[in-house]
Amino acid sequence: MKVDLNCDLGEAFGNYGFGGDQQIIPLITSANVACGFHAGDWNVLNETVELAKQHDVGIGAHPGLPDLQGFGRRNMDISAAEIYNIVIYQLGALQGFCSIHDVKMNHVKPHGALYQMGARNKDIAHAIAQAVYDFDPSLIFVGLSNTLLISEAKAIGLNTASEVFADRRYEEDGQLVSRKEDDAVIADTDEAIQQVLKMVTENKVISRTGKEIDLQADTICVHGDGAHALEFVTQIRKALSKEGISITQLGG
Amino acid sequence: MKVDLNCDLGEAFGNYGFGGDQQIIPLITSANVACGFHAGDWNVLNETVELAKQHDVGIGAHPGLPDLQGFGRRNMDISAAEIYNIVIYQLGALQGFCSIHDVKMNHVKPHGALYQMGARNKDIAHAIAQAVYDFDPSLIFVGLSNTLLISEAKAIGLNTASEVFADRRYEEDGQLVSRKEDDAVIADTDEAIQQVLKMVTENKVISRTGKEIDLQADTICVHGDGAHALEFVTQIRKALSKEGISITQLGG
Amino acid sequence: MKVDLNCDLGEAFGNYGFGGDQQIIPLITSANVACGFHAGDWNVLNETVELAKQHDVGIGAHPGLPDLQGFGRRNMDISAAEIYNIVIYQLGALQGFCSIHDVKMNHVKPHGALYQMGARNKDIAHAIAQAVYDFDPSLIFVGLSNTLLISEAKAIGLNTASEVFADRRYEEDGQLVSRKEDDAVIADTDEAIQQVLKMVTENKVISRTGKEIDLQADTICVHGDGAHALEFVTQIRKALSKEGISITQLGG
Amino acid sequence: MKVDLNCDLGEAFGNYGFGGDQQIIPLITSANVACGFHAGDWNVLNETVELAKQHDVGIGAHPGLPDLQGFGRRNMDISAAEIYNIVIYQLGALQGFCSIHDVKMNHVKPHGALYQMGARNKDIAHAIAQAVYDFDPSLIFVGLSNTLLISEAKAIGLNTASEVFADRRYEEDGQLVSRKEDDAVIADTDEAIQQVLKMVTENKVISRTGKEIDLQADTICVHGDGAHALEFVTQIRKALSKEGISITQLGG
Repeated sequence: MKVDLNCDLGEAFGNYGFGGDQQIIPLITSANVACGFHAGDWNVLNETVELAKQHDVGIGAHPGLPDLQGFGRRNMDISAAEIYNIVIYQLGALQGFCSIHDVKMNHVKPHGALYQMGARNKDIAHAIAQAVYDFDPSLIFVGLSNTLLISEAKAIGLNTASEVFADRRYEEDGQLVSRKEDDAVIADTDEAIQQVLKMVTENKVISRTGKEIDLQADTICVHGDGAHALEFVTQIRKALSKEGISITQLGG
Repeated sequence: MKVDLNCDLGEAFGNYGFGGDQQIIPLITSANVACGFHAGDWNVLNETVELAKQHDVGIGAHPGLPDLQGFGRRNMDISAAEIYNIVIYQLGALQGFCSIHDVKMNHVKPHGALYQMGARNKDIAHAIAQAVYDFDPSLIFVGLSNTLLISEAKAIGLNTASEVFADRRYEEDGQLVSRKEDDAVIADTDEAIQQVLKMVTENKVISRTGKEIDLQADTICVHGDGAHALEFVTQIRKALSKEGISITQLGG
Repeated sequence: MKVDLNCDLGEAFGNYGFGGDQQIIPLITSANVACGFHAGDWNVLNETVELAKQHDVGIGAHPGLPDLQGFGRRNMDISAAEIYNIVIYQLGALQGFCSIHDVKMNHVKPHGALYQMGARNKDIAHAIAQAVYDFDPSLIFVGLSNTLLISEAKAIGLNTASEVFADRRYEEDGQLVSRKEDDAVIADTDEAIQQVLKMVTENKVISRTGKEIDLQADTICVHGDGAHALEFVTQIRKALSKEGISITQLGG
Repeated sequence: MKVDLNCDLGEAFGNYGFGGDQQIIPLITSANVACGFHAGDWNVLNETVELAKQHDVGIGAHPGLPDLQGFGRRNMDISAAEIYNIVIYQLGALQGFCSIHDVKMNHVKPHGALYQMGARNKDIAHAIAQAVYDFDPSLIFVGLSNTLLISEAKAIGLNTASEVFADRRYEEDGQLVSRKEDDAVIADTDEAIQQVLKMVTENKVISRTGKEIDLQADTICVHGDGAHALEFVTQIRKALSKEGISITQLGG
C-alpha cells in the first residue's frame, strides 16, 4: 500500500516570497510547480526545479489562470479552446527549466480556479486533459477524486492520480465542502489524520452528512506554509508509516 | 549561393491585431515567433506555429524583455543571470506549441532591446546564447552580423546565422545607424536592393561614411506590415532570384 | 428633445493601435475613456483626454476588469468589495489626466464584462455605483436602460443616463440579445435608424419577439472603428437632426 | 528643530503580503504609499490610505516604474515624456482613495529606480517634478538631498523635503554609496544613530572617505520589515527626542 504527498511550490514572485519551500520539500514526494500565470516567475521556476531535483521529488506543472493579482483563485469565463492554449504555454515554460536541469516532468495538477472549473465543467476538464495528453501522454494527471477532471483524463488515455485532502470535509457527491461553509476545514489534527488513514487504506471518507462515500486516494495534498503545516505533515507521515503505508512519488 | 528571409510574426495580443502575418508568410523562409513577453499570447502562439507549419517556414523563438507596454524595445537593467531564465521560459513556451503541432523549432533570434543589449554587452550576449545552447544545442542562433551576439554564440558552440538589414544604414564598426539619426533608413527601394545584393554576394556593405566593410549575410530581416513592406519583399525576392541566389530556410 | 452619442475611446495600448479615435470624435458628444485595466495606458489616457478636450466632448471614465488579454470582456468572479476598489482606482487615474488638462470628468460607463455583470447582479451594480458616488456625486452614471445599473445608481442618488444600442436587438425584459444568437445584431442600416428614432422619440423598442417594450434613451452607444461605423454614425446624426432631435452632451 | 520619519507602505500585492505596515505606522509621521506599478494594488491602496488616516500619518504617493516583477528597482530606458504620464497616472490612482477616505495627499516620493534615475538625470527629475506640480502644486516633493530631484523640483516651484538615510553611507558628492559596495550600509546601530543626529542637528554627514559634507535632513527614510527594523526606528525616535528634536509630519 502506498500514497504520494504533493505540495504546491514555487509560488513566490519577483520581490515577493511565498511559502516555505525549503522546509516542506524533504517531507513530500511530489512538487506542483507554479508556472508564472497565477504565481511564480522565470527565476522562481529555475530555483524550484533545481530544489526539486536536489531532493529527488517528482516535478509537476501547476498551471493556473492568467490572474496574478487574484492568485488564480477567481473563476474566469474563458473558453475551453483558450484553456487548452493556456495549459500548453505553461507546460512548455516549465519544460524549459526541466530541460536545462535534465529532469523529467512527472505530473500535472491544475491550480485553484482552473482545478475547480475542471472538476465541475466537462469541456474545461477535457481541454485541460487534452492539452496534457498532446504535450506528453506519459504525464500523470492529478485531479480531485470522483470528479470530471479524473474521468475526462482517463477517457483521453492519461494515467491519473486521484487527489484527496487531509483537512477538508467532503460533500456526499465527493466535492469538497466550500470554504465559505463553517465546517469546510477539519481543525483537529487527530481527526484529519484518521480521515487520511481511512481514505488511503479503505478508499472511503465520511461526508459532512455522516454518510460513507467512496473515493480514490493516490495522492494527498499538503501545505508548506507555517510551522503548523510542517508539523501536520510530519504527523501524517508518522501515521502512514505506522500503518505500513509507503510514501512514494506518483508513478513510482 | 543562398540566403534566408526572416520576419517577426505572432505579435498580436488579445484583442489587438498586429502585422500582416497571413500576407507575408508566403514570401519568407523563417518566422521569428513572439513568445508572450513583449508581444504575442498563448492563442497567438498557437495560431502562428500552425500558420508557419502550413507554409513550411522555419520556426524560431523571438524572445523579448518582459515589457508588453513597451513592446520589448526599452533597455532594462536586468542581470545576465535573469536574462538566461527569461530566455529559457520563452523558448519552453514556444516549444509547447511546437510539440502539439509536431514541428521542430529551428532558430532563436532575440527581440528588440534584448537584441540590442546582446549586440553590445558580452555578459548579456553570453547569457542569451548559453540559454539557447542549454535548451537545445542544435538551434541556430540569429544575431546582428559582426556583433557579440554572433561571437559569443560561436564560442559556446552554437551554429549561428548573421543577420543583415536591407533598408538600414551601417556604421563603420558594423552596428546599425541608430534610428535617432536622419539617415538610419534607406528610403529608396533600388538603393536598398543594391545593398542587399552586395551584402549577399560579396559579404560587404558601404557604411554611412562611405567605407566598405565586411559582414556576413546569412539571413535578411524583412517586415510584413503594410502594402509597401510586402511589395518591398517581393522585389528583394525577384532581385535575388535574378542573381541566381537561392532563398532557403536557415540550416537548409 | 435631445440625445447624447457616446463612444469608447482610448483603447490603444503601448505599440498596439485601436479604433479610429480621431475620425469618430467629431461625430460624438461623449467619450468613454479606457483607464488602463482592459485597455489604454498612461500615454493613451493623456492623448485621449487632450483629444476630447480639443473637440469639446464630454469625458467619461470607462473602467473595466483587470484583464488586458481578454479586453475586459470575460466575467471574473470578483467580490463586490473588490469591484468598488477597482472602480475607484480607475476613476482616480483618469482624474489625474483631467486635472492636468483642466477638464471636468462628466460621466462613468462601466466596460464590457463589468457592464454586463452590473446589469445582472445587484451587489455588483451597487458597488460600481457607490464607488462613483463616493468619488464624485456629481458624475452621471451611464448604464443599460432598464437594468440594475440604472436602478442601483438612482437609489444611491446619482444622476443616471440610460443607454440604448442602435444596432442591437432587445429581449422582452430589456436586456440585449446575446451576441451568441444569430439575430443579436441589426445588419440593415435603415432598420437600425428606425429603431434609434423610435427609442429616442417614443422611449420604446420592438423586442426580438415583436413585443413593444419601454426603455429610456438618454444616450446612444456608437462605434468608431472602420469606415462602415463612421458612415453609420453620420446617418444616425442626419436622421436625428431631421426629426429635430438635438445631439447634446450628457448633462448638457 | 524638527524632522519627519517616512516609510514605504502598501507594498503588498494580491495574495502576497509585504512589510509590517501595522507595526511601523505608529512610529512614523509620513507614509509613502505604493500606487500599483512596482507594488500595491487597488485593495492594498484602499487599506493603506485607511490605515494612514487612522494613525494621522501624512499620506504620500510613491510612484514607481511599471515593473512589478522587478519591484520597480530596475532602470528602464523610458522617455521623460512617458515618465510624466506614469507619474500622473499613479498620483491620480492614489488620489481616488484619498478622496473616498476624505484625506489630503501631502507629499510625493519617487520609488526605487525612478528615484535613482531622477537623482542623476535632469530630464527625468524635471518630468517627475513637473507632473507633481501640474497635478497639485501644494504637494511636498521628497527626494535625495543634494540631487537633481530637489533642485529641479525647487526650480519648478514645489516645496521640497530633502531625504536622508540613517543607515547608508554617503559619497563625497552626496549620493548614496551603491549597495554593490561592501561599506554601503552602516551595520552598527549606534553609528547610524550618531549619523542621524549629525545630519539633523548640523545638516552634515561624514562621507565614506572621511570628509564632512553638507546635506539637508528634512525627512529620514526608515523601514518597517522585521523586528530589527522596528527596534532601530524606536531607538532613532528616542535619540531624537533626547536631543529635543520634534518628530513632525512633513509640512507640519
